[in-house]
Amino acid sequence: MYAIAIHGGAGGLPAQGLSAARQQRYRDGLAAALEQGYQHLAHGASSLEAVTAAVRALEDDPLFNAGHGAALTRDGGAELDAAVMDGSTLRAGAVAAVRHVKHPIELARRVMEKSRHVLLVGSGAEEFALEEGVELVPNTYFRTAERQAELEQLRDGGTVSELIPSPQGTVGAVARDAAGNLAAATSTGGMANKRPGRVGDSPIIGAGTYAKNGVCAVSATGHGEYFMRLVAGHHVCALVEYRGVSLAEAVRETLHERLRALGGDGGIIAVDTDGRISLDFTTQGMFRAARDSTGMHQIAI
Amino acid sequence: MYAIAIHGGAGGLPAQGLSAARQQRYRDGLAAALEQGYQHLAHGASSLEAVTAAVRALEDDPLFNAGHGAALTRDGGAELDAAVMDGSTLRAGAVAAVRHVKHPIELARRVMEKSRHVLLVGSGAEEFALEEGVELVPNTYFRTAERQAELEQLRDGGTVSELIPSPQGTVGAVARDAAGNLAAATSTGGMANKRPGRVGDSPIIGAGTYAKNGVCAVSATGHGEYFMRLVAGHHVCALVEYRGVSLAEAVRETLHERLRALGGDGGIIAVDTDGRISLDFTTQGMFRAARDSTGMHQIAI
Repeated sequence: MYAIAIHGGAGGLPAQGLSAARQQRYRDGLAAALEQGYQHLAHGASSLEAVTAAVRALEDDPLFNAGHGAALTRDGGAELDAAVMDGSTLRAGAVAAVRHVKHPIELARRVMEKSRHVLLVGSGAEEFALEEGVELVPNTYFRTAERQAELEQLRDGGTVSELIPSPQGTVGAVARDAAGNLAAATSTGGMANKRPGRVGDSPIIGAGTYAKNGVCAVSATGHGEYFMRLVAGHHVCALVEYRGVSLAEAVRETLHERLRALGGDGGIIAVDTDGRISLDFTTQGMFRAARDSTGMHQIAI
Repeated sequence: MYAIAIHGGAGGLPAQGLSAARQQRYRDGLAAALEQGYQHLAHGASSLEAVTAAVRALEDDPLFNAGHGAALTRDGGAELDAAVMDGSTLRAGAVAAVRHVKHPIELARRVMEKSRHVLLVGSGAEEFALEEGVELVPNTYFRTAERQAELEQLRDGGTVSELIPSPQGTVGAVARDAAGNLAAATSTGGMANKRPGRVGDSPIIGAGTYAKNGVCAVSATGHGEYFMRLVAGHHVCALVEYRGVSLAEAVRETLHERLRALGGDGGIIAVDTDGRISLDFTTQGMFRAARDSTGMHQIAI
């Protein structure tokens, strides 16, 4: 039995809704990324490979807030964060505030596998990317016309219409492979109009990303500061492991009770040791998709 | 009832032991920082004030690996990390990879109180410091002759003798005030000879620093990567809150079972909602001190 779930951000939908054409583009992007990850699982690859591949596909899609098409800082640049965790070994790698790494999730993976460290930030992380031969690109690669328009509208205090529905997007994936190993990966450009140097929950092990074999794997999206204060990813797993509740209940309580009590909003995708998937959110919508080897297959906004 | 505990790092002691004079200097530094924090509690100030003051005092003392006297990166510079958390509100602030902030713990406090964010890194964090009027100093301020000698010895593969016993030092404080509020603070220069851009557990909420009223407050020291993978600070609190074990048992299990199983070493100081203090470590020694309003008062290496 194997299973994968992905998300492409959670947030409020535009007042007039998303056009049908726009919705279809999101669905297509989610479907393609899900397929990338699922095929790895179907061919016997590890959950670690599956979540990395799915997140990498979302990084390449300009619709989602990660990699190409990332949300921009208040200075108009892109600063990217990503993390990956292997639940079978509790090994983890993460990068934050990188400005030239084409696939931040790949660099996070290298940090996990090739360095003695868990988290590298800024120019030190890019020095490591150069040493490892990880592809660097000019910062302009990440900046799409849509994101520049979004930033302009946020600066003017306006609302964003047909653009990405929320300035709090993120992409992520969780998976259980046939061997029972769990993994999680998350990547983001962070909050639109953010202060340079701001790091959210995505690259923080235990907050936006967490995986532990026998318990669960979690990737979060939403207002990162609240997920950091809750240590949301580890909190979900701790409820499952130490209070013995179901994954669905652990995710529900973390989001709808704990996160809401702090005033935060967002979504969580998670998978437990049996491959059961939870996709939950406190926002109006969450771009999400999931598939498992029993035939479950869904894509939703 | 009120209580405070502090640490000044955990690690292996030099083979020939610390000289009596050197031991006395450490004890004096710990005593002075403990007194700073304790006097705040005795005068009715919050645990947040107490842990900030204690950590600030340790940052100023060149013996300890934080602020002035921080361990140096492989490039010979200082890069500093710090975090603070207020258990009464679950608000938190942290900075990482800053190079010019005289008191990183003060900047972490400003991030918590004056920004919308939890974690700022690198030059973005220093931009915020300038906006807030937080004192900046040249990087040379942090670099002591002892730390430069330590770095030379590590580069040469030698062991460090009369110098700071471990390249994995950190300073931190946890406290419970008379109102029952818990707080934690941690500050560090990170691992000696570290790669620039490497961030350890100290500024990661849930890993090296965590506080939650009614449960516990935690500050960790040791091999940061292992504490990050365990989400050690939140793990201690989750065992107390969700499995109902004592703080001492939660700290013991986290350090001696979970951390050791990964191959990591270090120490944890923690205080629970009743003001009970735990000071535990897997290393040969931990610079530590604690005091409470019932008359308990200890300083140990």
